[in-house]
Amino acid sequence: MCGLHFLGVFLNEILNFSLFAGIFGAICAVVLAVKVYYENRGSERMREVARAVRQGVVAFSKVEYSAIIFLTIILSIVIYFALGFSTAFSFIIGAIASAVAGLAGMLVAARANVRTAEASKTSFEKALNIAFLGGSVTGLIVSSLGLIGIIMLLYLFNVEPSRIIGFGFGASLVSLFIRVGGGIYTKAADVGADLVGKVEAGIPEDDPRNPAVIADNVGDNVGDCAGMAADMFESYVVTIIAAMLLAPKILEGSDSNLILFPVLIASLGLISSIIGIFFTKDKKDAMNAFYKGVGATNIVFILLLFSAVTLLSIPIQYFFSCIIGIVAALLLGLITDYYTSPKHKPVQHIAKMSQTGATTNILSGLTVGMESTLVPVLVVALGIVFAFGFGGLFGIGLATTAMLATIGIFLSIDAYGPIVDNAGGIVVMAKLGEEARKTTDKLDSAGNITKATTKGIAIGAAALSAVAIFAAYDGVLIDSGIKVLMALDSPNVVFGLVIGAVLPFVFSSFCLGAVTSAAFEMVEEVRRQLKDGEVLKGRRKPDYARCVEISTKASLRGLVRPALLALASPLIIGFLFGPEALGGLILGVTATGFVLALMMANTGAAWDNAKKYIEEGNYGGKGTETHSAAVIGDTIGDPYKDTAGPSINALIKVIGTLSLLIARLL
Amino acid sequence: MCGLHFLGVFLNEILNFSLFAGIFGAICAVVLAVKVYYENRGSERMREVARAVRQGVVAFSKVEYSAIIFLTIILSIVIYFALGFSTAFSFIIGAIASAVAGLAGMLVAARANVRTAEASKTSFEKALNIAFLGGSVTGLIVSSLGLIGIIMLLYLFNVEPSRIIGFGFGASLVSLFIRVGGGIYTKAADVGADLVGKVEAGIPEDDPRNPAVIADNVGDNVGDCAGMAADMFESYVVTIIAAMLLAPKILEGSDSNLILFPVLIASLGLISSIIGIFFTKDKKDAMNAFYKGVGATNIVFILLLFSAVTLLSIPIQYFFSCIIGIVAALLLGLITDYYTSPKHKPVQHIAKMSQTGATTNILSGLTVGMESTLVPVLVVALGIVFAFGFGGLFGIGLATTAMLATIGIFLSIDAYGPIVDNAGGIVVMAKLGEEARKTTDKLDSAGNITKATTKGIAIGAAALSAVAIFAAYDGVLIDSGIKVLMALDSPNVVFGLVIGAVLPFVFSSFCLGAVTSAAFEMVEEVRRQLKDGEVLKGRRKPDYARCVEISTKASLRGLVRPALLALASPLIIGFLFGPEALGGLILGVTATGFVLALMMANTGAAWDNAKKYIEEGNYGGKGTETHSAAVIGDTIGDPYKDTAGPSINALIKVIGTLSLLIARLL
Repeated sequence: MCGLHFLGVFLNEILNFSLFAGIFGAICAVVLAVKVYYENRGSERMREVARAVRQGVVAFSKVEYSAIIFLTIILSIVIYFALGFSTAFSFIIGAIASAVAGLAGMLVAARANVRTAEASKTSFEKALNIAFLGGSVTGLIVSSLGLIGIIMLLYLFNVEPSRIIGFGFGASLVSLFIRVGGGIYTKAADVGADLVGKVEAGIPEDDPRNPAVIADNVGDNVGDCAGMAADMFESYVVTIIAAMLLAPKILEGSDSNLILFPVLIASLGLISSIIGIFFTKDKKDAMNAFYKGVGATNIVFILLLFSAVTLLSIPIQYFFSCIIGIVAALLLGLITDYYTSPKHKPVQHIAKMSQTGATTNILSGLTVGMESTLVPVLVVALGIVFAFGFGGLFGIGLATTAMLATIGIFLSIDAYGPIVDNAGGIVVMAKLGEEARKTTDKLDSAGNITKATTKGIAIGAAALSAVAIFAAYDGVLIDSGIKVLMALDSPNVVFGLVIGAVLPFVFSSFCLGAVTSAAFEMVEEVRRQLKDGEVLKGRRKPDYARCVEISTKASLRGLVRPALLALASPLIIGFLFGPEALGGLILGVTATGFVLALMMANTGAAWDNAKKYIEEGNYGGKGTETHSAAVIGDTIGDPYKDTAGPSINALIKVIGTLSLLIARLL
Repeated sequence: MCGLHFLGVFLNEILNFSLFAGIFGAICAVVLAVKVYYENRGSERMREVARAVRQGVVAFSKVEYSAIIFLTIILSIVIYFALGFSTAFSFIIGAIASAVAGLAGMLVAARANVRTAEASKTSFEKALNIAFLGGSVTGLIVSSLGLIGIIMLLYLFNVEPSRIIGFGFGASLVSLFIRVGGGIYTKAADVGADLVGKVEAGIPEDDPRNPAVIADNVGDNVGDCAGMAADMFESYVVTIIAAMLLAPKILEGSDSNLILFPVLIASLGLISSIIGIFFTKDKKDAMNAFYKGVGATNIVFILLLFSAVTLLSIPIQYFFSCIIGIVAALLLGLITDYYTSPKHKPVQHIAKMSQTGATTNILSGLTVGMESTLVPVLVVALGIVFAFGFGGLFGIGLATTAMLATIGIFLSIDAYGPIVDNAGGIVVMAKLGEEARKTTDKLDSAGNITKATTKGIAIGAAALSAVAIFAAYDGVLIDSGIKVLMALDSPNVVFGLVIGAVLPFVFSSFCLGAVTSAAFEMVEEVRRQLKDGEVLKGRRKPDYARCVEISTKASLRGLVRPALLALASPLIIGFLFGPEALGGLILGVTATGFVLALMMANTGAAWDNAKKYIEEGNYGGKGTETHSAAVIGDTIGDPYKDTAGPSINALIKVIGTLSLLIARLL
């Protein structure tokens, strides 16, 4: 492993440096978790609510993780016999790391919520700080575990990235399960709670008389928090591995290579994120705090990157490829904000159209959502062309790695969302008063914006990452001596492309179908409990556990079909129709899935915010026909933006990493 | 032109034979039109209604055709200077032929409606017959004009298909305008009429007190009838031309070629359709009549095809490629029927889910619609692989030609839909009584099924046709000495693919947005007219003309953005990013557009029929909350299935033919 140099530096030194960064990140995460834990956790009533939510989280995790462990064991045996020890071992480590990252983030979030609620009684700044630090634990754990995992495996397997592809696939598998399972869970509960609670019984959000309210709050943690963590963990590690696979074997005019440059980028990104976390503070405005944090992170990151490139004499064009990725992430965030924030025309247009009823509300939402895909796709497509122009296929890998290197900060901001959402629920359920509710509402409205924005970035990153995976797949085929000409005039390639284009739709259908059926069941259960009026009058406590159970069962049942589709399709296409068809499949599912995911995520967020815009008093405000119409759009948008849309990321990457894994068997 | 043989037969003889078939088809169309014209056109009140509808059709046509003429003149000048006389001339002829076919069908339909209504008073069989024969005029005109146009141009330009590509582009352009413009028109009126009429004022469909009722009936003609005619005309001629371009230049071991085989297939399909029309009869059941007609047509077609192949010693593998296309069409029809007919589980599931409100109705509709794309895509994708297996790229062209050869009968059945829909409207508006209404309802319900089914076939045909166009595009590049390697690992190809994937979404957004805004305007206008109650009490006649005007203006205004997108994108991508990117664009827009179009068409039809299923008395029937929920789904589905979905066909093919046209300039 010391035969090759990293531009004059021994590979080991880069690995050691990056490992240090990873461990440092993990220590910071632990410190922050402890800090959050010792915050005031409020009254008994609050702790009771928080405990109920935590129990729901644990119940969900048990069910979901049992399934994951079962499948991981089976698959690791198959992988061992088909691809050998190193891949099987990496696969297990990847699955464990991803599962741990998701679980840790979720459990910290389920503790930060009550502490945020308590703080919201007295200080906006403090509440913001606790919620954000709670989110930071997720952000830092995900990036450090990813980095540490990759580095340990590289030590073990002689810095041969092709032997650690399994790590990426393990992460993909867990991400698929958590994204889809968590997504179904959260939206079955949310839609069910809203449809009967808000629309039929006329009780407000998070009202403790709603039997589905605990399930709804559990859902925020398992869907939004763990789902996003697993998704980003996957994109992060898969991208780093793909970029290493794309690194030029030997750099022109030297015996050195750049194989560890992606790992170095990731470690610099992690350090920048840790620094950025310190800047994420504001007395009055959460969004301001986030702008400061992201701004600081990116400035530090670019400076560190530039220093590293200069110090190690890395050809400057690779630096430019990285910049493409950083700029793309920021642009994706801005565009998503434009299409989904109530401050801009698109969402206001939907609100206006709600005046003539649900039909025009929904149609205008779909119009906005479909239109919103254009510019992000242009950004990513041009990003591919430019990153390639600077650094070839490796450039595409670097751009994606740079884009994802600072997920530490992005994910912190994202995981903040479900914490404040939950805190708001606890404030209402434990009746902490008007002032506290105002504070959590303010925090939550920022959380809604950041959730939409980070989702836009995550989807763009998944698409770029899939392109990098495809390039790596192509490389593995060539290295394995498999001669392929994946030209568009080959009917096999067209076949793969067309099948790839249909998969995101079918996959989404499975996700939406699972949510719809579960929501239907949830509505019937809530209706049943509310029927005699005793619960609404406060004379009987609702049976929260029944609703938690419905969501938990639905999340597992609903997983089967999407998971089968994602795992079986690359195997069937690859082994029956050959490597060309599989190549077509990867790009087909990426291109169409990317657009569909964006469309669903943005449509859902726009509907959500159109409803909120009306609730602020526009077009008559709450209680009007216009508002009812907007609520329908919002409930349709829930599984769009939180189940089907982001789950497509997992689909795209499971197909990519599985294809990469089986490439040399074709 | 006589230097080459068509397997021993002179090319001229094949051309003469096919021309004869085309002229024979045209004569049949005229005879049928005259026959329909001399049927009893009913009372003065009926004729008054029919006249109002016809005037609306003429008003729409004037506006739309002025725009088409204007654009055709400008583009033909550009084409003349860029590509020479033959292409410009073909382009003009293509635009004229398509426009004439659409207009003729529309005008006959707008006369057959009142005669069908009159016949429905006395005899089901007769009403069915008049409506179907009215539809047959469209079916036969479209196929004969297409065939005659191509043959005349081949005579003129020395049987060089590359010189008549303009014909296809002319047809594409008109199809884009009619599909999009007509689609916006019809759904703005339909949604507007339904939202206020059915939902708010509680008056039945087609009630003469609804100010939007005439616009709605005009819409049936301009959207469903002319739109489908122009769409199919385009697929038909473009496919024949693409297949000719793909024909092997010289057949192995001879100095002959198969360049005219596609034309021969089309002429045999036309003859078979004419024969099939005679079999399309039934005393009680419209669907039975259609099964007989389609069955007879296909049996005759296969027999004729087999005879021709045997007589002319055409290699048998090409016959098998044709069979693939015929089987694919039948399968597409069956699958569409499964997902959209109230007789099967999917639609019944949506009806069931409507019990918990609009949200679950809409989500389950989207679920069904997304799932419904899988099997059709598999059919088409496998069709491509098998057709190629039998006959190479030419095989793909032949399969598509064979699939479209019998559009004579398919389009007859499709155009029957708007005629009976209109007839039902006239029966209600002219108060022809319960018995007549029952007959037209029965006819209409068959029309709804066939409309969905033929749409499924049209979308599949468009996708296959686009693949053939792509292959032809590739061929033209090679012939022009442009060296391209459209491999998936080229960033330009990926760029094109990704941009191609986003276009159908943005295009649909434009279409849906136009309908939503126009429907919003329509709702406000209808609300204004109904406000004082005078119209509802029958004391004042509603102002139909205002509503007709809103739809007409919206259809033209709404056209601008989708048309620009479709025409500009291949030019920008082709000239800025080169032929590889343009190749990626064609396949990207085809793969994603195909799936999205299927999804929207099927979702809309499933919602429509779920509502009808409830109206039959299931889950409480009309007047219940369940029914209201289903009506919302239905109105959202209207622009899905009749504007955006089918318009994507036009998008796919405009991009394809325009790329084919500019290929040698790149």
